[in-house]
Amino acid sequence: MADYVRNLWYMAAWEEEIQGEARLGRTLLDEPMLIYRKEDGGYVAMSDRCPHRLAPLHKGQRKGDTIACPYHGLEFDAAGQCTRNPFSDVIPPHARVRTYPAVGRYGVIWFWPGDPALADGSLIPDFSALDLPKPIVRGRMTFAANYEVISDNLLDLTHVEFIHPESFRTEGKIFAGQYDAEETEDGAIWSKWSMSGTNPPVWLEGVPKDALLDEWIDMRWHAPAAMLLHIGFTLAGTPRDAAPVPGMVNPHIITPETQTSSHYFFTRDPGEESESLANQVFEEEDRPMLEWIQRTMGNKDFWDWKPVILNVDAAGIRARCRLMKLRRTEVDLFVPAAVE
Amino acid sequence: MADYVRNLWYMAAWEEEIQGEARLGRTLLDEPMLIYRKEDGGYVAMSDRCPHRLAPLHKGQRKGDTIACPYHGLEFDAAGQCTRNPFSDVIPPHARVRTYPAVGRYGVIWFWPGDPALADGSLIPDFSALDLPKPIVRGRMTFAANYEVISDNLLDLTHVEFIHPESFRTEGKIFAGQYDAEETEDGAIWSKWSMSGTNPPVWLEGVPKDALLDEWIDMRWHAPAAMLLHIGFTLAGTPRDAAPVPGMVNPHIITPETQTSSHYFFTRDPGEESESLANQVFEEEDRPMLEWIQRTMGNKDFWDWKPVILNVDAAGIRARCRLMKLRRTEVDLFVPAAVE
Amino acid sequence: MADYVRNLWYMAAWEEEIQGEARLGRTLLDEPMLIYRKEDGGYVAMSDRCPHRLAPLHKGQRKGDTIACPYHGLEFDAAGQCTRNPFSDVIPPHARVRTYPAVGRYGVIWFWPGDPALADGSLIPDFSALDLPKPIVRGRMTFAANYEVISDNLLDLTHVEFIHPESFRTEGKIFAGQYDAEETEDGAIWSKWSMSGTNPPVWLEGVPKDALLDEWIDMRWHAPAAMLLHIGFTLAGTPRDAAPVPGMVNPHIITPETQTSSHYFFTRDPGEESESLANQVFEEEDRPMLEWIQRTMGNKDFWDWKPVILNVDAAGIRARCRLMKLRRTEVDLFVPAAVE
Repeated sequence: MADYVRNLWYMAAWEEEIQGEARLGRTLLDEPMLIYRKEDGGYVAMSDRCPHRLAPLHKGQRKGDTIACPYHGLEFDAAGQCTRNPFSDVIPPHARVRTYPAVGRYGVIWFWPGDPALADGSLIPDFSALDLPKPIVRGRMTFAANYEVISDNLLDLTHVEFIHPESFRTEGKIFAGQYDAEETEDGAIWSKWSMSGTNPPVWLEGVPKDALLDEWIDMRWHAPAAMLLHIGFTLAGTPRDAAPVPGMVNPHIITPETQTSSHYFFTRDPGEESESLANQVFEEEDRPMLEWIQRTMGNKDFWDWKPVILNVDAAGIRARCRLMKLRRTEVDLFVPAAVE
Repeated sequence: MADYVRNLWYMAAWEEEIQGEARLGRTLLDEPMLIYRKEDGGYVAMSDRCPHRLAPLHKGQRKGDTIACPYHGLEFDAAGQCTRNPFSDVIPPHARVRTYPAVGRYGVIWFWPGDPALADGSLIPDFSALDLPKPIVRGRMTFAANYEVISDNLLDLTHVEFIHPESFRTEGKIFAGQYDAEETEDGAIWSKWSMSGTNPPVWLEGVPKDALLDEWIDMRWHAPAAMLLHIGFTLAGTPRDAAPVPGMVNPHIITPETQTSSHYFFTRDPGEESESLANQVFEEEDRPMLEWIQRTMGNKDFWDWKPVILNVDAAGIRARCRLMKLRRTEVDLFVPAAVE
Repeated sequence: MADYVRNLWYMAAWEEEIQGEARLGRTLLDEPMLIYRKEDGGYVAMSDRCPHRLAPLHKGQRKGDTIACPYHGLEFDAAGQCTRNPFSDVIPPHARVRTYPAVGRYGVIWFWPGDPALADGSLIPDFSALDLPKPIVRGRMTFAANYEVISDNLLDLTHVEFIHPESFRTEGKIFAGQYDAEETEDGAIWSKWSMSGTNPPVWLEGVPKDALLDEWIDMRWHAPAAMLLHIGFTLAGTPRDAAPVPGMVNPHIITPETQTSSHYFFTRDPGEESESLANQVFEEEDRPMLEWIQRTMGNKDFWDWKPVILNVDAAGIRARCRLMKLRRTEVDLFVPAAVE
């Protein structure tokens, strides 16, 4: 399995998962992590293993920003330093929990598993589209698949015509579309489908039934696997910002739980219909495919399978290559937490 | 674990499992396989991993003899060659699925996981006994045990007196029997028990109650683990083909699913009584013993346990030695599919 | 994972688990074991793998002290020697099951997995406290945690204030206690808590309500993990044997099942209240903590985690060091059963 790239921002949780004094325990990049919100509103991401006997700190009591280990009561401040030993005035100097830079932005808690000195908040990808003041349901699933397998799925949207034909009713439009892969200065890789001369959807009002549309389905990727889907249409030949209805923007943000399982963060509209569609798409359609692929891949690396590369894989392959390059840069520079 | 011998015919399925356009997915020798029947009646056995992203081809649509990948629609003909890419006129030259020779004979689909040039149909062991036109139920179980552990069981029938005393009511006859192990020119190894001077069963009509019988219980083995059980009796001193009732012939054909699990193909008579007996014998009696042995064997090879060899193991040990010899012959000649 | 120390007495079972002709199968130190009682009252501990095909001997028939393999009927005497092959007069000379010295004492069956020549019964730790003629329930649980993780828990009783505050109602007394770790000539390591000037419990009669007490909570450990908890109190300044009510003595004897799971032998008073308390303490409070620690520890050794050592860990760390020293002594002296 390929090592994780550590000098990146990863999504740890939705901010709304951390209410008040909550202590969230979640495995991220193979490490049990404790996430909580400080009294000043900032976030703490620390190893969820007490350095004494590995007990789960997220089960401990909280006193202000300090967490008491649930096993023998050692207390740790938000910087991970042990500040109290209830059975002695002696605090061993290395009684310290590793902490990671963590930032709340766009409703997302981001954490940086690499060198803290490099944790520049300006490197967090732009998800300001999530800040829109409309009611939304923020969700998370766990898939038994490596995060790059899930990125492959999301960066090659031709699968929509095969896996999701009923759910998304693209009705073959993608077959007639034009595909482009692009890299932009913000570090994004885009997988773009453009369709011309399509018919208006039946529910669209104020546009003649015989009008022709330009449609787009664009997936934006940032390393390691933070994606934002843009879908929309406009009258043929008119600019996107003149669209008769606003486009849709949906996050698909993937964080490794382990090398063979992933947290999949998403949003959907409130309501039963939207919930039902999300269940259909994610649970019935994507999950069986992605988990089969992971099982079948076994212990061999993606590249060891000598996979066939198609033209429509351009964005997905660029994303995989970007991560490989980042991994090579990090080798010998950083000792990951799990083996230090 | 010992490598599989690849230049052999293995049973993949019963022919009756493949009705019409069915696409059967089944793991064989650690590889997911797709089995289907062509329009000309022949069979296809191909790797069930699309060479693009490992998707399960058996979930795909069928057009004639062509299978479309359920994930992104690549189409493959019965020779495994990609014939269509729905998003481009370009078909990458190595977009090809590995296929294996497959033949239907005796109601069985046989496939050859080794060098196709060596796949000689005349090497399929003779199971013409299965062609008899009587109604029969063809079944398959999966046991969590290596196929050689199951062969050991079937080639040493003394276990019947201990594991199956109620089910088969041999009533100690085997203890008084004579044992022979033989190898024949057709490549078979036989484990034979002969009992003399036994009494007629109570249901037998037309034979005096005080007549004496000669009985036989013969198991025939072909590599890797295709077995045929022959049971019968005749009046003492008369030839087998003069038997007052015809003997019974039952297949026990084992194909590795993985190194620690096996497909066990069998037949039984129709009806509830026969179903109940099969459940008793296979599920209640054989399964717990064979699965315990597999668990207990762990990661050590059979020979590493330095097992005690008894006289009644002669056929079983010959079968194990035959496979070892075949494995040694194949080393350096063939790169198995799983690591190529 | 650290090897087992083999030249030690381990608890295999409670004597009362072996009634009459019972054959108990239990995995101990990664090996399936058969335990039974001979007609002369002595115990047999032997490998539960027939040397022929690894079948489970505990499922076999018993004739006097002889066990017949349930698979093909080989018979083994209490010394593990094959004495009968039902299909031949020939008994292969190495048809022998490994046996281990086993002794019943204090209601406990002890076995010695190491060199039989060193199995000195006088080395069995003193559990005569278990011989008291009061009614008692003897129990066993399996925890998915290494036995040393469980010893750590029991030798650092400060966890009672955090994990079991409701169950044991120590009400913070331990925080005000004095801690001592001691090694004694009988090979024991003691973890001792002494509390002075505590108040009498409400149920105590015959002592003034304003009397002051001296209390003690002492855990005694013998390698590998045989522990005896002593709890009591006396009037302040008076000797322990002048206590107004007798102290409590409870065994906590841990035997490895595998490297990551353990048998936990305990006793409790009869009755629903005691059963309910034991369930609360063991199942609800200790189990989740110990199994989390084991999962989190993963394949790394305890010391590889560079754990913080506190003053209250003195006894636990001494116990771990004792086992390390014993392991080093055994290396090169003994080939463990599992790899011979």
